[in-house]
Amino acid sequence: MSGEPASAVVAAAEPDRSFSLAAERLLLGRMLASLGSPPIQLVLWDGQQVGKTHEENPARLLVRDRSALLRLIADPEFRFGELYVHERIEVDGNLTDFLETLYRALPRNKPLGFKEKLLAPFSSRRHSAAQSANNIYHHYDIGNDFYKLWLDEQLVYTCAYFPQPRLDLEQAQVAKLDYICRKLRLRPGETVVEAGCGWGAMALHMARHYGVQVKAFNLSREQIQHARLQAQSTGLAGQVEFVERDYRDIDGQFDAFVSVGMLEHVGLDDYHDLGALINRCLKPDGRGLIHSIGRDQPGNMNTWIERYIFPGACPPSLSQMMAIFEPNGLSVLDVENLRLHYAQTLTHWLQRFEAAADRVKDMFDESFVRTWRLYLAGSLASFRAGDLQLFQVAFSRNGNNQIPWSRQDVYQEAAHADL
Amino acid sequence: MSGEPASAVVAAAEPDRSFSLAAERLLLGRMLASLGSPPIQLVLWDGQQVGKTHEENPARLLVRDRSALLRLIADPEFRFGELYVHERIEVDGNLTDFLETLYRALPRNKPLGFKEKLLAPFSSRRHSAAQSANNIYHHYDIGNDFYKLWLDEQLVYTCAYFPQPRLDLEQAQVAKLDYICRKLRLRPGETVVEAGCGWGAMALHMARHYGVQVKAFNLSREQIQHARLQAQSTGLAGQVEFVERDYRDIDGQFDAFVSVGMLEHVGLDDYHDLGALINRCLKPDGRGLIHSIGRDQPGNMNTWIERYIFPGACPPSLSQMMAIFEPNGLSVLDVENLRLHYAQTLTHWLQRFEAAADRVKDMFDESFVRTWRLYLAGSLASFRAGDLQLFQVAFSRNGNNQIPWSRQDVYQEAAHADL
Repeated sequence: MSGEPASAVVAAAEPDRSFSLAAERLLLGRMLASLGSPPIQLVLWDGQQVGKTHEENPARLLVRDRSALLRLIADPEFRFGELYVHERIEVDGNLTDFLETLYRALPRNKPLGFKEKLLAPFSSRRHSAAQSANNIYHHYDIGNDFYKLWLDEQLVYTCAYFPQPRLDLEQAQVAKLDYICRKLRLRPGETVVEAGCGWGAMALHMARHYGVQVKAFNLSREQIQHARLQAQSTGLAGQVEFVERDYRDIDGQFDAFVSVGMLEHVGLDDYHDLGALINRCLKPDGRGLIHSIGRDQPGNMNTWIERYIFPGACPPSLSQMMAIFEPNGLSVLDVENLRLHYAQTLTHWLQRFEAAADRVKDMFDESFVRTWRLYLAGSLASFRAGDLQLFQVAFSRNGNNQIPWSRQDVYQEAAHADL
Repeated sequence: MSGEPASAVVAAAEPDRSFSLAAERLLLGRMLASLGSPPIQLVLWDGQQVGKTHEENPARLLVRDRSALLRLIADPEFRFGELYVHERIEVDGNLTDFLETLYRALPRNKPLGFKEKLLAPFSSRRHSAAQSANNIYHHYDIGNDFYKLWLDEQLVYTCAYFPQPRLDLEQAQVAKLDYICRKLRLRPGETVVEAGCGWGAMALHMARHYGVQVKAFNLSREQIQHARLQAQSTGLAGQVEFVERDYRDIDGQFDAFVSVGMLEHVGLDDYHDLGALINRCLKPDGRGLIHSIGRDQPGNMNTWIERYIFPGACPPSLSQMMAIFEPNGLSVLDVENLRLHYAQTLTHWLQRFEAAADRVKDMFDESFVRTWRLYLAGSLASFRAGDLQLFQVAFSRNGNNQIPWSRQDVYQEAAHADL
């Protein structure tokens, strides 16, 4: 990650009237080769073109000036975002399609680079309890009003589940909440602990439709306040306790453990401890489910996303996730990869975000709009291209024979007529 | 593993009339403590008792003489099997329940011992193509007539799937074959390659009910011959090719890759190459499924099983299995743990085996009967206790978007009225 402050990249004062050099275009060609030679075209400020577009995807990248070009060549992964946000580069065509083309060309399975190895020893520092709190405030305390503009009405900020692809986002988020409850086989009167509860939709759904008692943990004050109001206004305050604390403070024993969209914020070094915590807090016949963004092979988060959107985020591969379960006496019962459902979810979010872009600009500014546009489009492209996965992992204690016999019951008609 | 030849343990010529020593009983108590103090009782040849039985499980272990006792104390994991086979020890009560009690008490997550670490570097030698052939002949070429005594009519020697627990074994094996076809979403006219095809039931089911072309590999000559006869007698010889060769000889490209019960015989060191082979032999939109015994954490096979039943066998943990997929551009879509279905399958096998025990004794001898009884009962106890798992892992290439949208269709009514 660059030590240069973000403010170094700002919108250019006026157009660059110089001519690009052959040497610059040569360097740009080499950069494209290092990115796997994606079928994209770059158009420089003087009209010079480098690379060729794919027939099916005519999107092009416009580079506004020399300084932008040189920054891009120096560190394309990180600088693309900064330059895009400040309009020093622009995508002429569909942004998501352009990024998917780029991602699909990237060499797979490349070993970690020198810089990534160099930084790795410091990564665990980012997940101390204090730093975790900072990381969470950064993203989730932007303001509930902002998320209300483009999330579903229950503010579920994780991958939805679309039993039919054409469901709307509200339906698909409710379907996801219920899908997880069915995978956990919740029974009335049971107790559930939730690690990372967002705005509370999962906990409230469990309490309302499955008659369980839920204790839900979250570091984000804005989210917790919203969740408590929801519990009170729906008469569920006696069934759901929202706790504004780190998941590492969980104690007691529960029939079920659930965590939806939190693992991405847990450092790999903390997986073993998370598993030990789960082992402690599950009753002998308890069940659990972790829902998390992941990867097909170990790798690092895009450096721009990691800096500007999700500090400390790290989507694990399945082999990495197993560090939670294998050393801690837990048995994996079921893993489902819902990658295409996250692409569908992001398609909805991006559409809603674009429809609300003017209001977002009024609340913040144009660079904020472009930051979030790039983040949403880039995430959508990543799920489409297979750079990111969505894993739901169901588990119980090793040797527990009170586990579901088969999955058949999960796919019966929904037990609740109102869903 | 001991260097002593197996023939060193034989049935004692006459009863031991000496008295056991207090020091021997002390050593035995220490051995029990090292095994996690299972609630079992041992009764020595002179009537002395060591340990206490659990109220719910009154099975006891009878030790016939001093030599058996000392061997057991020296290496309980390995010697138990040898001594049992030669009637130097006997279980008074239900053998499976006794073993489950033993397995459940064993300390979990113990690190590999000195001996296992010492042997680890040599383990890969056991999976050269030539050694693999020896390993397979050892187990699978005992004779089809033997397996016909206690397997289902199609001779499916892998975990069955019981949509309802009370299905009989024939139904449950057909249900398993069909379940895998549905998970693979086979379509008429597609091509399938099978690595390790047993007596051919999977390949024949796919061809008959899904209209696909199958190329099926197996090292066991007896199995291949049986499979070819089945293909001819059912008119499927034009659709299924049985190849008597190592799976590493697979070439060409296929719509689907399937392997049921072979991975247990592949050495961990060969997983990366297996994944590379799958990557080569799958078409861009191809799907795959691996069905294998596994474990909740890395560990070694019981040394007695490894020596007498399955030389070279190694059930992997999920993190170990990921070495097939993660470095080879493959994306895990679905993992299902069917542990209790293997317990149910083994319950059927053991019942049928016991019903045919006299005929098995006529074909071989009493020690063969006791070897297989202990192997089947021990396997059943392992699945019940959670020492072994059964994983079905479905996958495709990374970034392939022609994957099933959800699992819903797998749990619809079976597509074939005759199933």
